[in-house]
Amino acid sequence: MAKNMQEGITAKKSDNFSEWYTQVLQKAEIADLRLGIKGFITIRPWGAMIMENMFRMYEDELQKKGHLPVIMPSVIPESNLKKEANHILGFTPQVFWLEAEKGEERLALRPTSETVFTPMFALWIRSHRDLPMKLYQKGSVFRYDTKATRPLIRGREFQWIECHDAFATREEAIKQTHEDMDTTEKIMHQKFGVPFLAMKRPEWDKFPGAEYTIGSDVFMPDGKLIQQPSTHMMGQKFSRAFGATFKDEQDKEDYLYTTAYGPAISRILVSVMSLHGDDKGLIVPYCLSPVKVIIVPIYNMKNKSKVLKYCKEINSKLSKLDIQNWLNNKEGYSPGWKFNESELKGIPFRLEIGEQEVKSKKVTLFTRDIGKKEKLFVKSLSKLKKLGQDYDERLKKKADKLMDNRIANCRTKEEIKKVLNSGKIARVNFCSVDKSGEKCAEHVKKELGAEVRGTLADKNEKPSGNCIICNTRAKAVVYIAKSY
Amino acid sequence: MAKNMQEGITAKKSDNFSEWYTQVLQKAEIADLRLGIKGFITIRPWGAMIMENMFRMYEDELQKKGHLPVIMPSVIPESNLKKEANHILGFTPQVFWLEAEKGEERLALRPTSETVFTPMFALWIRSHRDLPMKLYQKGSVFRYDTKATRPLIRGREFQWIECHDAFATREEAIKQTHEDMDTTEKIMHQKFGVPFLAMKRPEWDKFPGAEYTIGSDVFMPDGKLIQQPSTHMMGQKFSRAFGATFKDEQDKEDYLYTTAYGPAISRILVSVMSLHGDDKGLIVPYCLSPVKVIIVPIYNMKNKSKVLKYCKEINSKLSKLDIQNWLNNKEGYSPGWKFNESELKGIPFRLEIGEQEVKSKKVTLFTRDIGKKEKLFVKSLSKLKKLGQDYDERLKKKADKLMDNRIANCRTKEEIKKVLNSGKIARVNFCSVDKSGEKCAEHVKKELGAEVRGTLADKNEKPSGNCIICNTRAKAVVYIAKSY
Repeated sequence: MAKNMQEGITAKKSDNFSEWYTQVLQKAEIADLRLGIKGFITIRPWGAMIMENMFRMYEDELQKKGHLPVIMPSVIPESNLKKEANHILGFTPQVFWLEAEKGEERLALRPTSETVFTPMFALWIRSHRDLPMKLYQKGSVFRYDTKATRPLIRGREFQWIECHDAFATREEAIKQTHEDMDTTEKIMHQKFGVPFLAMKRPEWDKFPGAEYTIGSDVFMPDGKLIQQPSTHMMGQKFSRAFGATFKDEQDKEDYLYTTAYGPAISRILVSVMSLHGDDKGLIVPYCLSPVKVIIVPIYNMKNKSKVLKYCKEINSKLSKLDIQNWLNNKEGYSPGWKFNESELKGIPFRLEIGEQEVKSKKVTLFTRDIGKKEKLFVKSLSKLKKLGQDYDERLKKKADKLMDNRIANCRTKEEIKKVLNSGKIARVNFCSVDKSGEKCAEHVKKELGAEVRGTLADKNEKPSGNCIICNTRAKAVVYIAKSY
Repeated sequence: MAKNMQEGITAKKSDNFSEWYTQVLQKAEIADLRLGIKGFITIRPWGAMIMENMFRMYEDELQKKGHLPVIMPSVIPESNLKKEANHILGFTPQVFWLEAEKGEERLALRPTSETVFTPMFALWIRSHRDLPMKLYQKGSVFRYDTKATRPLIRGREFQWIECHDAFATREEAIKQTHEDMDTTEKIMHQKFGVPFLAMKRPEWDKFPGAEYTIGSDVFMPDGKLIQQPSTHMMGQKFSRAFGATFKDEQDKEDYLYTTAYGPAISRILVSVMSLHGDDKGLIVPYCLSPVKVIIVPIYNMKNKSKVLKYCKEINSKLSKLDIQNWLNNKEGYSPGWKFNESELKGIPFRLEIGEQEVKSKKVTLFTRDIGKKEKLFVKSLSKLKKLGQDYDERLKKKADKLMDNRIANCRTKEEIKKVLNSGKIARVNFCSVDKSGEKCAEHVKKELGAEVRGTLADKNEKPSGNCIICNTRAKAVVYIAKSY
């Protein structure tokens, strides 16, 4: 826990976000790139513990909604991967293969697990009585990405949860994709304070093998979007490829309808860090912080034992209140150093305790996000739980504000350019989000350096006018933005 | 949750343990082998949830003892793996390699992670102030085993926790290996009810690259031993290979002393299942069971709504008491079917609730391990927590008894044979546990089909007499057993 911490963040988040992000990763001890394996990183304790909290909150919500955990192999046989034609087309170039062992089938490191979940559905589900079956697994997935990797944003191994659900009817499967978006809302937005735009992806940008994909797009401070959890309606595509059938109430055999939902925890962490952090470092939501309260003793040789004794009392009082706290009494570090460390790491509350606090039976409470110092009676320590809730509410509201006025209607390419350069999303008439629109989307990419993110997922917007690119009659209203 | 469950276990555990184990895995829905990838299995929800509880209890204890989590890459560059000479000798034949990408270094799937932790120690630790550093990660490791694989016992991918700790002195590192054995005792034995024998492994059986290894050996019902968590004293072997130094209080540079400890959760599950289970199926300790209490309603068309309403009251009372419970009101399954399912899965307590129970404000409580039925007043439901503790205590005591009189002194090979055939461990005089004794150990393997497990870890036993194999003067008292 030491040597990189003496110095604070030297880049301003608003001026040079990329440099700010690099420094925060290192100085808040979230991740380390120095193992030097392209696209693979080491997540340090502070990052790993925040992610563990994210996993638990996500899993609790998924279990509440009827999902059960499984643990599948990390490898997938080549023949499984090749069963669904579009799936393999989409994923093959991104797959890490193992050196094949003599007489054994070639194996890939899983890029995603539809091709092992679906054959197991075929074995586990016999009749409608076994349905719905809603499963998830957490762990690593691997994608051989040739593009530039960026720590936690785009890597070759990342940490996620993947849900795979099977249903008797198309309607239930469609409903599931909406439930998945509700999970994104309840956890990523309401709990982690990360607002998003739900976008139905265009045909050319959906999950390989899916009927449709709904993604969630989140702003980064530099005005670009980052894709967060997506949900995919597979219909019967995978169940047909793997012969996964069930008998309905009339004893008639039919193929299962399946869906998939994949929140990438390591990537959501990027949004949590980027949206809430400031020029002093991270600001971690109270609900996610591994340490809610850090206690920093301030003493001299004369009052050391008195101050430390008082700190230990506070420490045990907080523990009894079930408030995770850390009495930082490490020798050889000054209080200022410890203040700096706690601000870099984004610990919500700090109690500064010196002789004055001992005498007055108070503590000095520092609140990270607003930088406010105030006195608090020891007997009022239980207030910290409520203050933690307020804290998270404040972070969410502040992040929500970043979404205000971020969408601008555009009628010309020039307007789009201007809008994109000001860190906004362009809302435009577009010929089509079917395959036929892909050419215009490529045009957008080449000429504007931006992407057609899709149509609103929860609203059917009617265009009036012609496609902003090809000038034929528009069939869709789409959103164009720069993205990671 | 269905079709494999209609039929109970048909093999007796005491007659045909291997068949019993296979059936329990399948019928209690712990794991499934039917993906058909050699050495890789699917762990189903019941198994995954038990393992999740095992992970949490283990991690809580490790964190209490000062360990912090990290997440390292699942891959290791070839050059890292080759840095420590003995390590690579021991692990190379067991490694899965990825197909190398053009211009990039060859990568292995991690078989264990000393060769990525140690270089990170070199970066993270500068001075004695940063020490000790105690880290762990949980997740999959991969070993290309050419021997017959057995589900959860010997596989090519398994789930574990690996702790890697760094210290300033040899004494602290040695102390850590004892703390690790204490963790095995506190969690695997005291909590999961799995007793073990702590064995210092002979030179030829220690971890590749270690100075010494202390393993824990656990009895299987067939009298063979299975190796459970080991702790390894690395001394300065890995730190020298990776140049991992620190400055001591006198500002003098020295190499770190490191240790490693690796509880394999999926393998400990084998012992939990095998030791506690009976001819009806699993018996899961209360502390590990994902469902502590299953509620089974018994009704006819006339009293259905009354009985279900009462069951829901019980369900919510238990939830308020923070007792994980499952009201199994699935349609289309008889109470008998549900009883059978709960016994196969080893759920500690079952509440059978019919009209009589509604009238008397009682429940019928069935206790899985002793098969006892009794009446309990609804207002006494909170007793279940205490009953759960008693339950676990009972399982532990019963398992402990299996260790009684399991060690027999032997003076001839004939005696060893007899002892091994009766499912016991032979205690014998042995020439040496240094390299020089390996020849005699090979003899034991060939002639007796058994292994020299090592010497007692916590007691220095003095031999009196000659080696039972080569008849030279014995320098050690060793324990010989058949093993998995």
